[in-house]
Amino acid sequence: MTDTVSAEQERREADLVERVVRSFDGCSDPRLKQLMTSLVHHLHAFAREVRLTEEEWAKGIGFLTAAGHITDDKRQEFILLSDVLGLSMQTIGINNEAYGDATEATVFGPFFVENSPEIPLGGSISGGATGEPCWVEGTVSDSDGHPVAGARIEVWEADAEGLYDVQHDDGRTAARGHLFTDAEGRYSFWGVTPTPYPIPHDGPVGQMLAAVGRSPMRASHLHFMVSAAGQRTLVTHIFVRGDELLDSDTVFGVKSSLVKGFERQAPGSPTPDGYAVDGAWSRVSFDIVLAPAGT
Amino acid sequence: MTDTVSAEQERREADLVERVVRSFDGCSDPRLKQLMTSLVHHLHAFAREVRLTEEEWAKGIGFLTAAGHITDDKRQEFILLSDVLGLSMQTIGINNEAYGDATEATVFGPFFVENSPEIPLGGSISGGATGEPCWVEGTVSDSDGHPVAGARIEVWEADAEGLYDVQHDDGRTAARGHLFTDAEGRYSFWGVTPTPYPIPHDGPVGQMLAAVGRSPMRASHLHFMVSAAGQRTLVTHIFVRGDELLDSDTVFGVKSSLVKGFERQAPGSPTPDGYAVDGAWSRVSFDIVLAPAGT
Ligand SMILES: [Fe+2]
Ligand SMILES: [Fe+2]
Repeated sequence: MTDTVSAEQERREADLVERVVRSFDGCSDPRLKQLMTSLVHHLHAFAREVRLTEEEWAKGIGFLTAAGHITDDKRQEFILLSDVLGLSMQTIGINNEAYGDATEATVFGPFFVENSPEIPLGGSISGGATGEPCWVEGTVSDSDGHPVAGARIEVWEADAEGLYDVQHDDGRTAARGHLFTDAEGRYSFWGVTPTPYPIPHDGPVGQMLAAVGRSPMRASHLHFMVSAAGQRTLVTHIFVRGDELLDSDTVFGVKSSLVKGFERQAPGSPTPDGYAVDGAWSRVSFDIVLAPAGT
Repeated sequence: MTDTVSAEQERREADLVERVVRSFDGCSDPRLKQLMTSLVHHLHAFAREVRLTEEEWAKGIGFLTAAGHITDDKRQEFILLSDVLGLSMQTIGINNEAYGDATEATVFGPFFVENSPEIPLGGSISGGATGEPCWVEGTVSDSDGHPVAGARIEVWEADAEGLYDVQHDDGRTAARGHLFTDAEGRYSFWGVTPTPYPIPHDGPVGQMLAAVGRSPMRASHLHFMVSAAGQRTLVTHIFVRGDELLDSDTVFGVKSSLVKGFERQAPGSPTPDGYAVDGAWSRVSFDIVLAPAGT
């Protein structure tokens, strides 16, 4: 509230909030009632705090309309909006509370695809994707330190052009796959060294980022989703140590615990599995700790 | 914040909010920066307060997507959403602060049309609209009590079926028009007695209202927009005293100062201007006080 608002004006505004909240009195679902009541309080607090003008309100309506119209089964502008406002990360954090040394979660993103190819331990997910080969290895354990055998690891990433396979619109499957940990909880696979890419920014969210002087770039990353019986499913990324975008990832996905050293290997260096790589490659280690299910 | 959240979790959540707010540091438009900062604070406060689940977040994304897809040049679901959450009324109140005895504003609604027919004083706006005839008369004055001559009064309303002309999809113009006050600030016209109608409720907003147990009905009303040189333009309604929907108007548009007696006249009662009405009619008086421009 600014100090220029009269007591009568203040009373009218607060009274309206109470009337709206009371309109949910008849809601038979207590959780829905709680959500709507809280939403109304915060929405009105925002409008009152900034003294929202009618022109700004109309711009907001226009923004949501444009976001709705660009959204289809391949493009989700409302998720992008939630991402760039940090709401996606906040929701993920709320639902994946800190638990001992369990690996932290980060945004899911819009590029996961069901039914990815299964690859053997040490196999390749690249499927012909452009990019420098990257050897990824690590372990999956529970929060007591015991290895988790048979954990399902889904991995997906952009190619060297900064595009996921589904963004190429030619039906290809590349740079995604899933594998299972061995009896000692170990896993390894060949992927490509992650490179930065922009979120889709030719729509209203991109315009908003430009208006506020923000970049649409995401820090380089490799997506993981790890699930195992009795464990909380982990959706996360690993990021590349030294990437200059780590501090400005446009969806706020970076957590320091998820930044890993991707060690560059000179051309001709022997690979862990004897696979013949043409040129330079990199390697990274990522040990995963799962929290118990229900935490 | 619930008391079950650990200090570490609390720190992570607050830290994320600060990171998002700092992402607007480079915004060169101070007002936009203020809007985004406040929006982020309130949006995150909502998610943290209710401990928003990932499923609820996904439902919210789905709701906005459906609202976007039903919105076109004739249907505006985001305005409906703003209306039923009271945000439209709050914005109107913020931008039309209480000023002396100036007539209060209320929601604009989606059914105003530019270039309505001009009618003479005492003329009819009905254009063939179904409904009981209603004689509307009053004055327009400034906040010093001086009559305002030549004020432009736009009026529009639903017909007896609860539909505006534009909702009939046959190109008709009915139950809308504009006129000008005379030298003493007086105006009068024939319209139809207002009846209640539902907001469009076959979309996501209607589903939300049903889920929370709210009616989509608006209290009976007649729309006014009054403009004059040197005066703040007034967008308002008058409501019908005794209407049982006055306390549950689904867009929170009712203000007690805008509730007027529509006096029912028996069939055959002489009309103010000698116009021959077939059956019962009603009459109402509405004296309008404009605030100065720029207040
Ligand atoms: Fe990604
Ligand atoms: Fe209306």
